This record gives sequence, C-alpha cells and structure tokens, in this order.
Amino acid sequence: MSESPLFERIALIGLGLIGSSLARAIKARLPGSLVVVTDHTAAVRRRAGEIGLGDEIAEDANTAVKEADLVILCVPVGATASLGASIAPALKPGAILSDVGSVKGAVVAALAPLVPETVHLVPAHPVAGTEYSGPDSGFATLFENRWCILTPPEAADPAAVARMSAFWRALGANVEQMSAAHHDLVLAITSHVPHLIAYNIVGTAADLEEVTASEVIKFSAGGFRDFTRIAASDPTMWRDVFLNNRDAVLEMLGRFNEDLSALQRMIRWGDGDGLFELFTRTRAIRRNIIASGQETSAPDFGRRVGTPAANEASATTTERQNNS
Amino acid sequence: MSESPLFERIALIGLGLIGSSLARAIKARLPGSLVVVTDHTAAVRRRAGEIGLGDEIAEDANTAVKEADLVILCVPVGATASLGASIAPALKPGAILSDVGSVKGAVVAALAPLVPETVHLVPAHPVAGTEYSGPDSGFATLFENRWCILTPPEAADPAAVARMSAFWRALGANVEQMSAAHHDLVLAITSHVPHLIAYNIVGTAADLEEVTASEVIKFSAGGFRDFTRIAASDPTMWRDVFLNNRDAVLEMLGRFNEDLSALQRMIRWGDGDGLFELFTRTRAIRRNIIASGQETSAPDFGRRVGTPAANEASATTTERQNNS
Repeated sequence: MSESPLFERIALIGLGLIGSSLARAIKARLPGSLVVVTDHTAAVRRRAGEIGLGDEIAEDANTAVKEADLVILCVPVGATASLGASIAPALKPGAILSDVGSVKGAVVAALAPLVPETVHLVPAHPVAGTEYSGPDSGFATLFENRWCILTPPEAADPAAVARMSAFWRALGANVEQMSAAHHDLVLAITSHVPHLIAYNIVGTAADLEEVTASEVIKFSAGGFRDFTRIAASDPTMWRDVFLNNRDAVLEMLGRFNEDLSALQRMIRWGDGDGLFELFTRTRAIRRNIIASGQETSAPDFGRRVGTPAANEASATTTERQNNS
Repeated sequence: MSESPLFERIALIGLGLIGSSLARAIKARLPGSLVVVTDHTAAVRRRAGEIGLGDEIAEDANTAVKEADLVILCVPVGATASLGASIAPALKPGAILSDVGSVKGAVVAALAPLVPETVHLVPAHPVAGTEYSGPDSGFATLFENRWCILTPPEAADPAAVARMSAFWRALGANVEQMSAAHHDLVLAITSHVPHLIAYNIVGTAADLEEVTASEVIKFSAGGFRDFTRIAASDPTMWRDVFLNNRDAVLEMLGRFNEDLSALQRMIRWGDGDGLFELFTRTRAIRRNIIASGQETSAPDFGRRVGTPAANEASATTTERQNNS
C-alpha cells in the first residue's frame, strides 16, 4: 500500500464473476483505492451489500462513475455500447475508461467515438475465469499468474497505459499489449472456438436418439464431462462474444473444420500412422502449458483426491491404457 | 475379505494406467486373490517389481495366464487379437477372459473365435482414467464410483458374467451391461469424438502462422487448456480406438459436423437467439453430471485453491462475465 494510490476512486460497473473478483482483488491488493460498485440488476446490488463488495454501492452506472479515476465496464460485450453512451458524459476529465471484455475490436469500435477527448480509453481483457457466474462466484486471487491483455488505441496516452499495466500487475496478473485485431485472432483460437465446439458437442449428445441422456451422463467420465464445464459458461456473455468476433471465429473455425476433415479421412481409410503422428504432437503442447504455469500437472486437473503426483517419466512407457 | 475369494488367481497383462490401477485396487479390495502381472516391455516389468505391483511378475503373457481363474488384457485395443491368439492355448479350462478396452465390438470379434470352448469371454470397459500413462500413474481408487460396462456375447455363461460384475463392484465401480454395438455407439459420443475434436483443435492451434505457439500457451486459460488435457492422452491407445470403432465414430462425427455447420451459420448471420438457446440448454447437462456424482462442482474442476464453493444460486444472476 503506497502513500498515494494508483487510483483514488475506482468504479466497477457489473458484478458478475469478473467484476466481483475485481472488487475483492482491489480490496486485498490495493487497499488505498476507494471502490464504487454497481450493477443494472437490483438483486445483484443488494447481494453486493450483503457480501461486502466495494466501499460504496451506487444505484446506477452514471452515479458510480462520477469522480472516478478509473472506470471498468464488467458487462457482456454486447452491453458495452449502450452503457458507454450512457456514462460518457458523466466521466471525469483525466479518467481512464477500461473494460474486461473477451472481444476487443468491437469494444474499441463502440467506445472510441463516445469517449470525451479528456478521457483515456484503455481496453483490457484478463484471460481468467471459471464456469460460474454472478457476484458470489468471484474471488480475490482469480487474476494471479493469469495474463491480462491491454489493447490501447494507437493514439493512447502512454502514461494511462502504464497505469493500467501497473494496476493489473498489482492484482497479480502478467500484462501483455497488442492490437485489438490481433487479440481477437488469438482469443478466437485459445478461447472462442474451444467454447463453440464444447457447446456444440454437448448439444449433439443431448439430441441423440440412439443414446439416452442418462447414458451420456453416466459414461461422461470418458472425456465428455470436460467439455460440459466450458459449455456451462454464461450464455449471454458467450452469445455476445460470437456476435462480436464473427470474422476471427469463422476464420479459425474454417481451419478447425479443414483439419477435422483430414482426421475424418484418416479414420475412414485407416491411416494409423497419421493419427499417431498428430496424437503425439499434441502431447507436447500440454507439457509447455504446464511448464509455463498456466495449468496444473495433477492428473485429471486434480479433481480426484488420492491420485499420484504427475510423473513425467511414467508418461513414456509403451504399454498403457488411459482416459478410456 | 471372504473365506473363498472371488478369484484365486488373477492375471493382468499390460501395466499401463488401467493395469497398474487394477493391481493396486485388487490388493486393496480383494486381498484374498493372488495377482500375477506382466507387460511386454522389460523396463515396465522391472518397474512393477520396484513399486510392488502384483504378487508375482511373469516374464511373458503365456506364463502369466497359466492356472489363472481370471485373465484381464490391459493393452491397447489393436494389440488384443495377437495377444489373444498367443495366450488362448495356455488358458485354464473354466477361466474367465476379460479386457478393459475402450472399443468392444472389435474386441469381441477378435477374441471370440480364439477362445477355447471351456473359457468364458466377458469383455469389460471401465470408464475411468487420467491423461497419464504407465505403471507409476495407476492408483487403487481409480474405479470408485465410475461405471464399468460389461458386453458379454449373447451365449455367455450367466454365472461368469455375474462373477465379473461382482469383481468390478468389489473394486468400487458401478456395473452396467449392454451389447458391444451399443457400447461402441455410446462411447463414440461420450469419449471418442470428444477426444478426436480435442486432438484436432490442439493441432489446429499448433499449425497457425498468425498466432504464435507462445501466445497459444500464454492465453490458454481462456478455455483451450481444458482441451489439451485429453489431447495429452496416450497416442497408441487412441490410434487403436479410432481404427477399431470407425463406423460409430464417423456416424457421431457426422452429427457433430452438421450441428457445427448450423452454429457456424448462426454466427455468420448474427442469430443471437439461436446461440443463446443452445448455450442455455447445455448448462443443464453439466448440472446433471454433477448431480450424478460423475463430476465435481468445484469451479475450474477445483484446479485452483481458494476458489469459492460452487453456488447454484449465484449462477442465475444476469450481469456477469466468465471463462473469458
């Protein structure tokens, strides 16, 4: 806790998983800042009071942003434009306006024309989350050792960008900067298309006639249940992601489909060597994700107690049977 | 531990994740049985000795099965036929021959003609595993509260089937019986196609030019890393699954592709209601999997400590942002 805090007054608009985690993380890591929170749903504002989110709870966004040095929009991407239009006139000169949306091109396009010249627009995307939603689901450590991507417009004030970078680092995140367009391409493959195919296969399984819903549930430990976790994510948020990152998602989905057609052909024609080659190559990527600290090495994500510690050596023997 | 054990002498051929878990589980739950283990790789047999798998370690499969009342093949599905042909003459009259393969039609087709009339063929598939392989990766509780599917041929001896059912229940599993053909259809959607699309998207991401490998790894917490877990599964085992369950996998993949085309079209044409409807429907399936005890309700599979307990109520509020 420094003598003069990074931001005197921070306004968080929207108290879902990310907004409520930010309120908790700021309290834990930046106790010198005063946090004003709000949400467009009255029940959520009431709940925020009960569980002590923020120092003040505002009745609406325009009240919340008054005098705030930093305003972070924590709402679905599709709600950004109308919210931005509403609060823009109330923003304090010199304030930073930021967000946490999973799509950045559309956010910049929506906000840039609305923001007064005296306000600094520095969009951000903390790549962190769980499958749960709402004010009770947040936690102070959500951003620790996760990456936060800043996508400031080219003309952005370097000092404002540096303050946002310092802010996210203070919450435990690593910070990277890139263009909004590149962000949307990177996230299309690391997040948006994975969610889409998870939603898709869960839907396919639900619609089968030959296999009952009860069978799908019983035998889900064979791999399917992993997909259901991300297919349980918030529908509003994800609808908005796909509507607002259409081009990059369709481009990456096109590549996914091409590759899947090739795999399908290998299966049809019995190309065991081709299958083996791909299945070997993909192992290395997980090892790198674990080594980079972005994933646990515990078997099955550690969801079962009593499993052995991950043993790199044991993964190289030849006679085995797993994840059946 | 009963006076007369379910099986006096059990032979386990292959000491990967499943075989080595069986050795441990039998020791813990059926201590009256003598367990003979073997593996075609000398290093694995040596390791089995070091970590104390089984009561006896045989130099080869034919030696292991001698006098065994129960023989379980724990090898990749593609190795079943040649192994079965090799051991068939050495099987003890009255013995049960079983396996743990993820495909059942091909296993029955391979083994049925080889098995002497005096031996009972009762194929099995414990739907349990982790992404790790080899003798060190097994653990005694792997089968607890998981399902084991038996697919006995129509002419199978009911007493032999009942003994296999009792065996798996003794190890903590739930047991279900179905035809090999139905098994292969059910597992195609709950296990095989999920693995295929996980392998596929990890491969697609690895091949991109616009997005670097380092970016894919850094920003994998947005969803991609979940897929890398199952795409880290054993390549030999999975090659064999796809080569041996071709028809059911291609059928389910066809449905997956149809559904994905419909989703792709919704994104292209901005059909937000269609996306929202699917994304809402898929949430319910995870709730049912959790309620059935096949999955944890801990956020993010519980892979992060310090997250809040799952809160059903919190998943219903409207303003939120998650899994970004």
